[in-house]
Amino acid sequence: MAKLIDGTRNKLSSRRGFLKAGLALGGMAATTGAIAGEGDPAILEKKDWVQYTGDGVDARPYGTPSEFEEHVTRKNVAWLTADPVSSVNFTPLHELDGIITPNGLCFERHHAGIAEIDPAEHRLMINGLVEKELVFTMEDLMRFPRENRVYFLECAANTGMEWHGSQLNGCQFTHGMIHNVMYTGIPLKYLLEEAGLKTNAKWLLPEGADASGMTRSLPLAKALEDCLVAFKMNGEALRPEQGYPLRLVVPGWEGNMWIKWLRRIEVGDQPWHHREETAKYTDLMENGKARHFTWEMDAKSVITNPSPQAPLLHKSGHTVLSGIAWSGRGKVDRVDISLDGGRNWRPARIDGLSLDKSMHRFYYEFDWDGSPLLLQSRAIDSTGYIQPTRNELRAIRGTNSIYHNNGIQTWHVKSDGEVENVEVS
Amino acid sequence: MAKLIDGTRNKLSSRRGFLKAGLALGGMAATTGAIAGEGDPAILEKKDWVQYTGDGVDARPYGTPSEFEEHVTRKNVAWLTADPVSSVNFTPLHELDGIITPNGLCFERHHAGIAEIDPAEHRLMINGLVEKELVFTMEDLMRFPRENRVYFLECAANTGMEWHGSQLNGCQFTHGMIHNVMYTGIPLKYLLEEAGLKTNAKWLLPEGADASGMTRSLPLAKALEDCLVAFKMNGEALRPEQGYPLRLVVPGWEGNMWIKWLRRIEVGDQPWHHREETAKYTDLMENGKARHFTWEMDAKSVITNPSPQAPLLHKSGHTVLSGIAWSGRGKVDRVDISLDGGRNWRPARIDGLSLDKSMHRFYYEFDWDGSPLLLQSRAIDSTGYIQPTRNELRAIRGTNSIYHNNGIQTWHVKSDGEVENVEVS
Repeated sequence: MAKLIDGTRNKLSSRRGFLKAGLALGGMAATTGAIAGEGDPAILEKKDWVQYTGDGVDARPYGTPSEFEEHVTRKNVAWLTADPVSSVNFTPLHELDGIITPNGLCFERHHAGIAEIDPAEHRLMINGLVEKELVFTMEDLMRFPRENRVYFLECAANTGMEWHGSQLNGCQFTHGMIHNVMYTGIPLKYLLEEAGLKTNAKWLLPEGADASGMTRSLPLAKALEDCLVAFKMNGEALRPEQGYPLRLVVPGWEGNMWIKWLRRIEVGDQPWHHREETAKYTDLMENGKARHFTWEMDAKSVITNPSPQAPLLHKSGHTVLSGIAWSGRGKVDRVDISLDGGRNWRPARIDGLSLDKSMHRFYYEFDWDGSPLLLQSRAIDSTGYIQPTRNELRAIRGTNSIYHNNGIQTWHVKSDGEVENVEVS
Repeated sequence: MAKLIDGTRNKLSSRRGFLKAGLALGGMAATTGAIAGEGDPAILEKKDWVQYTGDGVDARPYGTPSEFEEHVTRKNVAWLTADPVSSVNFTPLHELDGIITPNGLCFERHHAGIAEIDPAEHRLMINGLVEKELVFTMEDLMRFPRENRVYFLECAANTGMEWHGSQLNGCQFTHGMIHNVMYTGIPLKYLLEEAGLKTNAKWLLPEGADASGMTRSLPLAKALEDCLVAFKMNGEALRPEQGYPLRLVVPGWEGNMWIKWLRRIEVGDQPWHHREETAKYTDLMENGKARHFTWEMDAKSVITNPSPQAPLLHKSGHTVLSGIAWSGRGKVDRVDISLDGGRNWRPARIDGLSLDKSMHRFYYEFDWDGSPLLLQSRAIDSTGYIQPTRNELRAIRGTNSIYHNNGIQTWHVKSDGEVENVEVS
């Protein structure tokens, strides 16, 4: 059909606008029991897409989404940072389902833009307190055993703007610094074994090859436990903004430690206290002291639908509420839902894979009577930890910090189905 | 860095060519124990990508692969069919790892091109032997409970060209009519329950909205057991070539039954014997009779690396062999590897998720002595079924068929690391 349309984009858009206006007539078929909308099922025969053959298999060697999904993108917030080379592009959580984040929609955060690295030129060095210093090519690395694991990656600053009350209107912006991906990588312990650790080795300093030369101190115990040097995400090569051709995977820990464009791992006997673990990525408390090395991401959840960018389009009746939950300490055992701002709670249905340190998908199906709702979700993880309210967090940590806000999110659903980001006391 | 390059593509390509020539020097660091290649690790500091900031977060609202991965695409074979609107675009299995196929690389096969459907205009009708005929809008469907499941989809014709001996040189072409995706969809039983099945209902006829109006007869029992009406794949909306906005998911059964652009499901009391289940998708035996309704995909496996498109680049030593296995009847319990054309077998390591009717990833790590190899893999599924040799299949089914060839694949690895598709007797 695309072949019949000159300047495809414009004609498709105007057709879309026209049909959107006609949509209201079509709803509610299933729940009223009547055949919906146009009444005459024969209209199904008249759609133009059944009249003509579409594009062939030679059209898109690497596939792209439908023209009708053009609005489904990562989005950045211009005022958030001084320059887009040190900023964030948020995952459109309200447009997704299941637990896999497609590579094109994984949030990105970098500190000096996206390094464009030729894998043939890239090297990974291991130096410091090792028996023999090593430099690996990508081909060398392909000769080590690999593992495949699904993990969430959350930025420590996710939901950070909400410490001071509801700020951003949409779960893409309040909670979109997270993605969940199947990684293929080499257990870091194999590379360290190849180099041979000296007996006083206790810390690692992974370093990125981008212009920011990102570094973080990583305890050796964590590296030996479950860290991966990953080269694929969701089956294909890492995307450039996710560290192509190599990134560190630090399951359950804050995203800044998952060094991208990984080029070097120094082995030492103490932490380095570099910029990103002192001036940044520490949580300033009311007493002027800072929480430090707060690596683990606490259990958290958010309702993605409905939410401000995804209002309810029907006026009452069968309603599917959906959202995501995760914990840096293990699996999510339970998610509770409140429709009344935290007074009453009912268990949601967790569906699909429940994996360690991975995103979980939950649903709550209910009959909406059309009255306003104060929606909340709360995750309980496999250690028994219960996601706190924002005020419980503020009572302990004050409001100086921007990191590690895992407080309960509230959405106000109005009678017309529109949704606002609100706080409840 | 891209900003510094005029006409990015050309300069990147020439840089890549230059560096490829220098690659041979860099290999083998890990296995020889010496620091590799350039000798002086200080060269790591001199890469141009550390000198300049790269693209910011405003560059790609929907992300794309690295320029250095441009060769990783689906590929079609022009001589295979009369027209690209009724043809196939093969998954580059040799470039992937793990078990998730990224959406842009999922093989596509259509019979009248890709229908471009406006979801606001799309309808799903259920008619025939039901209490009330229904027409659902996409919004109606979003009010039914959903499930998330990972399933492989394999075309019945996958490996079909190989019945007559080794034909196609690369696992992309011999085995690339398969992908493995996490679907979000509505259990079909819920929609049938909403319509109310009459007591004589026994068969369904799902129908596509593309110009081919694809139809297949589906036993009601399978529909009630595990079929989904899916609207998302790997988290985001179905891709156009995979049936956007709705496709049927028929776990473990041949791909042609997974009706794309799903617009209608007719309920009947007997199969329809339409074109795609009589003239096509039946297996002609030597005696002139055809196997019919051969829906289930038998257990199968293939080594993806090394393979003709992915030769071994080192001359001996530590080698990682990798591949995929699957069964339409359940999980894959075991994969065996032979290095000598089927004389001796050793168990491979299955890594990552082992899910019902989903792709499994296996590895076999060994020390290659540099002599020629005849590589084979054989899958054993959770029912105890063992993947047969091609000659075992031919002895029973003859060589008239092109469908359901799940015989063992052989790759001949030569001393120089190059790989050929061969047959062993």
